[in-house]
Amino acid sequence: MPAPADDVPTGHPHAGDPVFDLHLGGKMGIRSAVELTGSEELSLAYTPGVARVCTAIADDPTMSEHYTWVPNTVAVVTDGTAVLGLGDIGPAAAMPVMEGKAVLFKQFGNVDAIPICLATTDVDEIVETVVRLAPSFGGINLEDISAPRCFEIERQLKERLDIPVFHDDQHGTAVVTLAALENALRLTGRTMHETRVVISGAGAAGVAVARILLAAGLRDLAVVDRQGVLNSERSDLTPVKEALARDTADHFGRSGTLAEVLEGADVYIGVSGGTVPEEVVARMAPESIIFGLANPTPEVHPDVAHRHARVVATGRSDFANQINNVLAFPGIFRGAFDARATSITEGMKLAAATALADLVGDDLAEDLVIPGPFDPRVGPAVATAVAEAARRDGVTRA
Amino acid sequence: MPAPADDVPTGHPHAGDPVFDLHLGGKMGIRSAVELTGSEELSLAYTPGVARVCTAIADDPTMSEHYTWVPNTVAVVTDGTAVLGLGDIGPAAAMPVMEGKAVLFKQFGNVDAIPICLATTDVDEIVETVVRLAPSFGGINLEDISAPRCFEIERQLKERLDIPVFHDDQHGTAVVTLAALENALRLTGRTMHETRVVISGAGAAGVAVARILLAAGLRDLAVVDRQGVLNSERSDLTPVKEALARDTADHFGRSGTLAEVLEGADVYIGVSGGTVPEEVVARMAPESIIFGLANPTPEVHPDVAHRHARVVATGRSDFANQINNVLAFPGIFRGAFDARATSITEGMKLAAATALADLVGDDLAEDLVIPGPFDPRVGPAVATAVAEAARRDGVTRA
Repeated sequence: MPAPADDVPTGHPHAGDPVFDLHLGGKMGIRSAVELTGSEELSLAYTPGVARVCTAIADDPTMSEHYTWVPNTVAVVTDGTAVLGLGDIGPAAAMPVMEGKAVLFKQFGNVDAIPICLATTDVDEIVETVVRLAPSFGGINLEDISAPRCFEIERQLKERLDIPVFHDDQHGTAVVTLAALENALRLTGRTMHETRVVISGAGAAGVAVARILLAAGLRDLAVVDRQGVLNSERSDLTPVKEALARDTADHFGRSGTLAEVLEGADVYIGVSGGTVPEEVVARMAPESIIFGLANPTPEVHPDVAHRHARVVATGRSDFANQINNVLAFPGIFRGAFDARATSITEGMKLAAATALADLVGDDLAEDLVIPGPFDPRVGPAVATAVAEAARRDGVTRA
Repeated sequence: MPAPADDVPTGHPHAGDPVFDLHLGGKMGIRSAVELTGSEELSLAYTPGVARVCTAIADDPTMSEHYTWVPNTVAVVTDGTAVLGLGDIGPAAAMPVMEGKAVLFKQFGNVDAIPICLATTDVDEIVETVVRLAPSFGGINLEDISAPRCFEIERQLKERLDIPVFHDDQHGTAVVTLAALENALRLTGRTMHETRVVISGAGAAGVAVARILLAAGLRDLAVVDRQGVLNSERSDLTPVKEALARDTADHFGRSGTLAEVLEGADVYIGVSGGTVPEEVVARMAPESIIFGLANPTPEVHPDVAHRHARVVATGRSDFANQINNVLAFPGIFRGAFDARATSITEGMKLAAATALADLVGDDLAEDLVIPGPFDPRVGPAVATAVAEAARRDGVTRA
């Protein structure tokens, strides 16, 4: 057997596979900000010196913003029920995604993120657990928790905590989708007010994308699940879908199947998986916009989409216009932390989307409606816009 | 106003105070083990590549030992009820101590420790919370939780989890105290079997020190709380103290006050605070051993102790023979992790103590019964001994 190259780890079950080699030992660790070289440093960083810092915080809780790592930390919390496209694989198997998220938080937002994979899927238990953990963290990023539980968990946590709570599968996707759509509309000479949009998928991402588009001024929106368009004629809707039906398809009397409602639509946004047949895509409006965001297989393959649409986006890095949450969450938390925000408002999310869209500027083109994830301007631009919006919305700490 | 020196932080409430300057922004952060320089790395460390690692773990949970950071992490869990000598200052104010602990874990054991400060003091809630968090961590270090709740929390967690659970205020103190005592006995020509010991304090540390001394072969032990010697004549004892009374003072019929029971005793170990009058110390046996471990004020000041005792130890870094938990916990978790141990046994703790004591070797002297915290041999020696004991005790993963 030939000797392995120096930089290829060996001696683990999947040695030689680049993905597993990279994951060996995990993707993250703790870094000490203080170096203890002798008793004197030890007595400053630990006993007896540390007691004075504890006492200062006990006397004035705002001191923890200065003298602990808490205000720069976010717990990345999952129960492992909706991990990527893999579904309910449990908390232990979800860890590599949460570590990946933490690595992205650090690299793109200089946020210290800690993966928390919970051994419960009960809504109340998750809420109680996170509330009890809250003194340890400056923010909570919910991740890969299945719908509709994710909506209730986020709602309760936002109500009970005075730190930012953000379900990335909902709002990260929503922010980046809105940014890409803003630019696609600009390119095709449309306004949010007059555009007709269909979203397929009414899970975490679908609901949040719908909500942010409505908040951005969209009026003619239909959301479709496996049974067809969400509207008030249906009796099978969850409370979240019922509310969404009233705010979307009801207004324009939209109904029927995805194929029916897509006829003449300007925009298709897929966050559902599955495949939309080409003949359905062909019946959309001229100069249509198609975002097939399912990973790894978009609902409409870009080759097919390009035969009928003017702007095409996917969730994949190997096609133009990648709708990637990493464009949003690191800068959103960076901005929220910089502004010492107590929550993440609709205004902060809309500001993040506009900041992202604006970065494209004069480079706007069919194959460039959203910046790439390694554009170094992204994190700072989103953070600045989010911090400003937090101040405008009055959600910063006194 | 003169310009501040370059290396002195300014612009925070306690600027200029070395302790607070050192704590500015907290003492720790997250370190990425992977550098993402482009889409290719991103697709290995995150989607789509990461999905294969998740699937591998879902199929075979032992894969998480290779491909996540979990097996090298410990949650440092507190409820803030017994922080240093400060008492019940709450979870937020406890954070600087927990960060300090994490820094020590990293520096002395290369263990990644994450501070978890809980907003509950209820025993069942703490247990449930930690059980739910457990998939995220390779071990649990309980910290600064008041007695007697700490005993019940540790007992339940050890029963319910298959990862090491260790209450450092109990067992860290116990291990280092035993190590120092082993050497002090050697120096004064005593054996554990024939030595008469008095412990003042029946909280977390006192109970654990008593238990490890019994496990190490001590027979004549009396533990004293504020009401006097714990023995079965008393009707005011908690279940933990009752059990301890049966195993200690009952055997030799010890009773009375601390002053009474100290008369003729070979060893005094103080983990209670307060002061032992010099005339009481003077009535101990010749060549006595005095460990006054309260911080910052030892129960017997070393100047007083040295007038009557041959070996004197404290918890302070500015006197000889510092009984410092940092000698134990980093190496104990390092060893437990290296051996993939599922728990921390009595055998592992005893092995840690002996390894620590043995490091002193031929340098043994009145002012050197325990190594210093910056002795670079300490962490590795403890880790090796603990890992060996774990294998001997059969508590390593298959």
